[in-house]
Amino acid sequence: MTKTELLYEGKAKKIYATEDPEVILAVYKDQATARNGKKKVNVAHKGTLNNQITSHLFNYLKANGVASHFIKQVSATEQLLHKVKMIPLEVVLRNLASGHFETKFAVPHLMQFNRPIVEFYYKSDALDDPFINDAQILALEIATEAQIEALKTKALLVNQVLKQLFDQLGITLVDFKLEFGLTSSGEILLADELSPDNMRLLDKKTQQSLDKDIFRKGLGDMIPAYQEVLHRIEDKEQNANVLS
Amino acid sequence: MTKTELLYEGKAKKIYATEDPEVILAVYKDQATARNGKKKVNVAHKGTLNNQITSHLFNYLKANGVASHFIKQVSATEQLLHKVKMIPLEVVLRNLASGHFETKFAVPHLMQFNRPIVEFYYKSDALDDPFINDAQILALEIATEAQIEALKTKALLVNQVLKQLFDQLGITLVDFKLEFGLTSSGEILLADELSPDNMRLLDKKTQQSLDKDIFRKGLGDMIPAYQEVLHRIEDKEQNANVLS
Repeated sequence: MTKTELLYEGKAKKIYATEDPEVILAVYKDQATARNGKKKVNVAHKGTLNNQITSHLFNYLKANGVASHFIKQVSATEQLLHKVKMIPLEVVLRNLASGHFETKFAVPHLMQFNRPIVEFYYKSDALDDPFINDAQILALEIATEAQIEALKTKALLVNQVLKQLFDQLGITLVDFKLEFGLTSSGEILLADELSPDNMRLLDKKTQQSLDKDIFRKGLGDMIPAYQEVLHRIEDKEQNANVLS
Repeated sequence: MTKTELLYEGKAKKIYATEDPEVILAVYKDQATARNGKKKVNVAHKGTLNNQITSHLFNYLKANGVASHFIKQVSATEQLLHKVKMIPLEVVLRNLASGHFETKFAVPHLMQFNRPIVEFYYKSDALDDPFINDAQILALEIATEAQIEALKTKALLVNQVLKQLFDQLGITLVDFKLEFGLTSSGEILLADELSPDNMRLLDKKTQQSLDKDIFRKGLGDMIPAYQEVLHRIEDKEQNANVLS
């Protein structure tokens, strides 16, 4: 399978067509952005790290009953994916208060919620991805009621699986952002990526960030943290293989 | 029933205790505010007009099956109310796109929704009344799931009754804001006021605003518009009485 036409270039990935009309190829870029692209720099190794972390996590989710667009990793920076029509919603799941939620509602940093919060944001660079509720999604015909419920159920399931995994890795899953797509038959598949670019991860021992907050807040080099996340995932997999 | 201690002074009303611990008295003020109190002026007659319009509309809603905190109008600017514990949510209902919704989602002015939109805002002057979704309301323990559903059902019912009434008065009900309170037995009652201060109303013939947008946008004197709304309501009531 080789890449042909460039279909789309986003902040963190380029998407290419392949010879198979149902399959696309994602190339992970070495670019870090924050504040919807207003802060942007080149960061060596980021593309390969996010490609590997995402590949591991999509495989792990599949083994735990969560289907995604992921087919397989094909090189250090590339993965093959099922082509889907992206639903223009960012689905955010929060276990603990962080980021703009803290400021918006003036709650303590890392306040634990009695139940996870799911939020939707309407994907539009021009509108700055506004926060949107279910009734607005329905009235603007962005998704159907059944699709909204499916997105919530899937986001909660992803949270359940990943929270348990990261617990085993000594990492707290604070919050994360998902995107979903529709297959030609109307099935909703988890899509986009699953990396420290769109999750907040805290080392349980040191309480240090292992995610893009290092870049957002200018706390230093993000690469060692991303490498640490990858190593812990890989160590766990090796141990699991040794034991099985 | 006479007023005793001042319990609360808001932007548009003062609330007093009475001899009956279950009954309070609202005094409508001649003050107009916009942008959460950042724009504020004195407007003669506004208090009496809003008191009268609110009294008529709460009576009309009661006759159409919607209970509220309203007991009766007792003077030009005063009404007696059942005392309730306010739920700290503004419940906004939209039939047509207007105000900040238009800007936020870049939709045409007065775009008609295929179904009404209900939105919640968390009442907090310090936080500037942030937009909030159901999951956030639950996680922050602002209301229960049953209360959220009741608020939506009641807001949709109020819309159905008032939309039909205003249609008969030659007025389009664009959107409005409600607030609710809990009785000591846990019943949810419609509370606050129902006036052109918290509704968007358009004259069907002229497409002119008959509401606080006149003040927000600096379009002139708001009083003649408020008087027009009151007169149309009173004319309809007189005709109904003559016919009955």
